[in-house]
Amino acid sequence: MQQSENSKTSRAIGVSLELDSGRLQRQIDELASISEAPAPVVTRVLFSEADLRARAFVKKLCSELDLSICEDAIGNIFARWPGIDTSLPPVATGSHIDAIPNAGRYDGVVGVLGALEAMRALKQSGFKPRHSIELIIFTAEEPTRFGIGCLGSRLLAGSLSRERMDSLRDREGHDVDYWREKAGFGSADLESVRLRKNSYAAFVELHIEQGPVLEKENVPIGVVEKIAAPGTLRVQLTGVGGHAGAVLMPERHDALLAGAEIALAVEQAALTSGSADTVATTGVFRIEPGAVNSVPCRAWLEIDLRDTQLPTRDAALRKIENSIPEICRRRGIEFQTERLNMDEPAICDAKLVNSVLAVCDEMKLTAKKMISRAYHDSLFMARICPTTMIFIPCRGGVSHRPDEYSSPEQIKAGVHVLAQTLVRLAQ
Amino acid sequence: MQQSENSKTSRAIGVSLELDSGRLQRQIDELASISEAPAPVVTRVLFSEADLRARAFVKKLCSELDLSICEDAIGNIFARWPGIDTSLPPVATGSHIDAIPNAGRYDGVVGVLGALEAMRALKQSGFKPRHSIELIIFTAEEPTRFGIGCLGSRLLAGSLSRERMDSLRDREGHDVDYWREKAGFGSADLESVRLRKNSYAAFVELHIEQGPVLEKENVPIGVVEKIAAPGTLRVQLTGVGGHAGAVLMPERHDALLAGAEIALAVEQAALTSGSADTVATTGVFRIEPGAVNSVPCRAWLEIDLRDTQLPTRDAALRKIENSIPEICRRRGIEFQTERLNMDEPAICDAKLVNSVLAVCDEMKLTAKKMISRAYHDSLFMARICPTTMIFIPCRGGVSHRPDEYSSPEQIKAGVHVLAQTLVRLAQ
Repeated sequence: MQQSENSKTSRAIGVSLELDSGRLQRQIDELASISEAPAPVVTRVLFSEADLRARAFVKKLCSELDLSICEDAIGNIFARWPGIDTSLPPVATGSHIDAIPNAGRYDGVVGVLGALEAMRALKQSGFKPRHSIELIIFTAEEPTRFGIGCLGSRLLAGSLSRERMDSLRDREGHDVDYWREKAGFGSADLESVRLRKNSYAAFVELHIEQGPVLEKENVPIGVVEKIAAPGTLRVQLTGVGGHAGAVLMPERHDALLAGAEIALAVEQAALTSGSADTVATTGVFRIEPGAVNSVPCRAWLEIDLRDTQLPTRDAALRKIENSIPEICRRRGIEFQTERLNMDEPAICDAKLVNSVLAVCDEMKLTAKKMISRAYHDSLFMARICPTTMIFIPCRGGVSHRPDEYSSPEQIKAGVHVLAQTLVRLAQ
Repeated sequence: MQQSENSKTSRAIGVSLELDSGRLQRQIDELASISEAPAPVVTRVLFSEADLRARAFVKKLCSELDLSICEDAIGNIFARWPGIDTSLPPVATGSHIDAIPNAGRYDGVVGVLGALEAMRALKQSGFKPRHSIELIIFTAEEPTRFGIGCLGSRLLAGSLSRERMDSLRDREGHDVDYWREKAGFGSADLESVRLRKNSYAAFVELHIEQGPVLEKENVPIGVVEKIAAPGTLRVQLTGVGGHAGAVLMPERHDALLAGAEIALAVEQAALTSGSADTVATTGVFRIEPGAVNSVPCRAWLEIDLRDTQLPTRDAALRKIENSIPEICRRRGIEFQTERLNMDEPAICDAKLVNSVLAVCDEMKLTAKKMISRAYHDSLFMARICPTTMIFIPCRGGVSHRPDEYSSPEQIKAGVHVLAQTLVRLAQ
């Protein structure tokens, strides 16, 4: 039913598509089963064995569509459907397949497998693109291993200095080179990853909203015109350990308690930034030794800070950074803070946003211009080519959890809008 | 020099001993190398591969001394030097060899390897005990795996109900039976572990102080007359996870922030209990999912609470237990609390304390009656037989850390006092 309706709609804009949402859902489910943790949890940390198997799975699907595949030195995957005029810059789409610990199956994946379904249906329809169409699967959109997100797209956009790159370490102390060599991406210079400006005619990323707006307003499609500015702060605290029975309270320098105060100060900084759009989260909080009868001697915090506007985000950042020395001085704790990233917001390309809105209009699908509060590889792609995102609703606005969910129909609508947008951009 | 002096001293009370502190130190160092973590860190969690290797190492040493070895259903090891009159209850000594994560090499180990050195020297001296002398190596003095300390001695003393035992789970959800079967201690009824009252004529545990008193006062020997009452509380918090960018601050139910407030309330409860002896520590603090860009949905806390007196400890406990519902209600967090243990303090046997003091006096060693703020297997042995502890100084009062240290001379003095006390009790 749904399919024939959609097919009718799409005829109105020239290319009749038969999207197979059953096949797409089976692929999403199969990819979800490639995980470091048992179902329904999806965990695929950068270059883990599960991440590598997931990459192999997606590359196999790309090969089945006769796309030509290449990978760069950080492991970004490019799968190209050559256009009639290969001298033109390709039109790109894509997203990521890595997943944070304890995640769900849709974040990133919908933009990868959905794009493949769009390309399959476009091929089947007989459509011959003038521009090549390229699917990009970005390396490490999620920050789990190195505390910094969008590793692949940052490098594509030249937004990560060599110095910063060389300084990245995971919790075991391994650097990026260690992991990319382990994953088989050799030791080629990471400078080679960087793309020229306007290497692509456009980049359009399909993604679940990861927020509640579309579901609440019962709108099937969001078109992103701005992406909130993210920042990440790492804090290392060193106190003095000891036996929990023997060290009396006035003698203590407990790193966990300093961390607890800092986490609460992070919350306060967001609540008092002056903007309802400021969010701040202590998402990583680890202590050593982590034994019930031992005073914690060390703590590591990673703090995520975002806002649609820089002034209020930076006001919150300053409050947090001012609170840390005060708390640590009072408790006799040594501290180190490091800004892992402090990015600018991205403004999406207005012409491209209007193109997607026009496609929705032709398809008689309600669409809404939106801000993306989550950040994505699009934040960095926007620095090198016209970029926007297509959002679809997700249940309860929930993401980064195993119960993350978008229905096959919601996904199909998004894939359809993506496909018709690719037609419009590539023809 | 030291040795001949000590030998002289010991002649005064009848048995001339040649203690070899070099050999003892080499054994301590060899045992320290059996660890789940690289040197100088010692980590030997109950029934880990390192714990099992450490047990094998110590049993080999016992065999070399011709001690007869048996193990009970929880893995307590009993190594006996038979006395002339085997109808008499044995005199016991001993301690533990498990170690919390990131620990040092002396906690517990000095009481096990030191007792073996004492027995070796006593055998070499020609001493023939009337009572058997028995070394006990207790299973899981440290609470790391199940959140409850002194598993072995609790069971020996009948201080752990079957219901409580059956409810214990490690962080992967495995129970005690799972682990003891894995470790090769079969599935015999744990009731069989329990000992009759006065199965032993006495129990004397040699241990590092794990506090600063002896070092500060330059006293080589402490004799314990009271052991502080320990309590452990486990708190599980369930909030609502979500994307750190997309969930605005007023919508959040962040389990980490509730945990942070609880950890600070734990500190306050100890500071305001009315006694300087009350200590309270949040030693375990874990969150899920633990990703920088995800709102923490779950937190686990383990809280250690101790005092020399029950009224002030229980006042602090009540404050903590009252703060949790208030914090969780305000933040919309579900919580579960569980008292893992709430033990009474132990009063050591006055006659036995005086015996050790008399030995010190004869040896011309200054000794001091003390409270043990840390708890030990002696807390439970005191419930079934006359018990005391011999403390030696440790540098800076530091314990449960890799830099834990007592000098070979300090250890030798403790071993010597233990040996002469065993002579006094077993002859």
